Amino acid sequence: MAETGIIIVAGGSGQRMGSSIPKQFLMLGNQPVLVHSINRIHQTLPAAEIVVVLPEEHIPLWQNLAARFDVAKHKIATGGSERFYSVKNGLKELSDDVKIVAVHDAVRPLVSKKLLIRLVLQAEKSVAVIPTLPPVDSFRYVQGDDSSIIDRSALRIVQTPQMFNAEVLRRAYEQEFSTKFTDDASVVESMGEKITLCEGEHQNLKITTPEDLVIATALLDAEQEA
Amino acid sequence: MAETGIIIVAGGSGQRMGSSIPKQFLMLGNQPVLVHSINRIHQTLPAAEIVVVLPEEHIPLWQNLAARFDVAKHKIATGGSERFYSVKNGLKELSDDVKIVAVHDAVRPLVSKKLLIRLVLQAEKSVAVIPTLPPVDSFRYVQGDDSSIIDRSALRIVQTPQMFNAEVLRRAYEQEFSTKFTDDASVVESMGEKITLCEGEHQNLKITTPEDLVIATALLDAEQEA
Repeated sequence: MAETGIIIVAGGSGQRMGSSIPKQFLMLGNQPVLVHSINRIHQTLPAAEIVVVLPEEHIPLWQNLAARFDVAKHKIATGGSERFYSVKNGLKELSDDVKIVAVHDAVRPLVSKKLLIRLVLQAEKSVAVIPTLPPVDSFRYVQGDDSSIIDRSALRIVQTPQMFNAEVLRRAYEQEFSTKFTDDASVVESMGEKITLCEGEHQNLKITTPEDLVIATALLDAEQEA
Repeated sequence: MAETGIIIVAGGSGQRMGSSIPKQFLMLGNQPVLVHSINRIHQTLPAAEIVVVLPEEHIPLWQNLAARFDVAKHKIATGGSERFYSVKNGLKELSDDVKIVAVHDAVRPLVSKKLLIRLVLQAEKSVAVIPTLPPVDSFRYVQGDDSSIIDRSALRIVQTPQMFNAEVLRRAYEQEFSTKFTDDASVVESMGEKITLCEGEHQNLKITTPEDLVIATALLDAEQEA
């Protein structure tokens, strides 16, 4: 398996949680969300280099938390004003011999071993691979005061980790920042590279609301019972 | 408050659940999913007429279940080959003096009182109102082998209940069926009517996978504790 580097991006001010604690630091079961995110990846890819990118003001809080839990070895990089700059800072901390780089949201603590392996295997033969899911709900597309139905069968929900050829990703992050960069795949895509879609999973949810934390707890319990 | 009729549509073969029991009949807490869906609406809108639309082959199973639980009064209509025909059959069971008709998915058992009231108040001054939510994830739009990023800020997840002026809805369902009718709003919209969007809610999830049932159970427990 190719040398792999993982950048775990913890942005977010925690405002949406109705809590002053950023959501990656909230407890999920008996560990903070971010500890789950790091340890899950380490358990599946024990040789991978892990970099956690945090806003500067949250680094002391994280160091404090990390000392109290059993967290896999990782480096810390300082976040920027946009996710783009955060990932760029994270990339600098990875060794030159890394061949595949995965970029993952800190607030997706339940990514499975199965999904991680599916992505790495695909990343070994692709420039960029991202996990996606067909949505269950209907969608509308809003333009000003109007909205119209959009063909659901053509929509895919995009998750992380997104995995890339390291060289291509490094080149992509040499570009000027654009507001069109909504995820890492879009940064690579803007260089004309093809994005490969791979099947994601429902349990790999993004924790952004208090309900999501309730949901994640239930999914974690169900996983542990299974 | 205007006379309201509710059509609860229970389609689905249950295949996605990995279970031969259609998902609306599965237990959520101490009641089947469909019992929650009916009783929640009845508790908030006790004067509303309720019609449940079921595939013909599931009606005996439902009658059996309904006899064993405390279910609010409702009529039963027979489902069609498409949701369009199911709703059309449901409409026929409502009294002529109904002024607002809500169409709801049977597998959305956790719709809140707050959302129902918000929708009814808006429906009293609109032709069509639907609950929507801004998505948290990124999305891609797939065309053949290619896919492209889609502006997430313009996307809205569409939920039910969708509420309509009864006269307009009846007229809309006199149209010929089209595969473009992906929800009830799209049937009304095809007549040139404006669809009003209203804020939906995360807990009003659609149960389509085993994970969703775990999630719904957790949300129900959290609600009961609160």
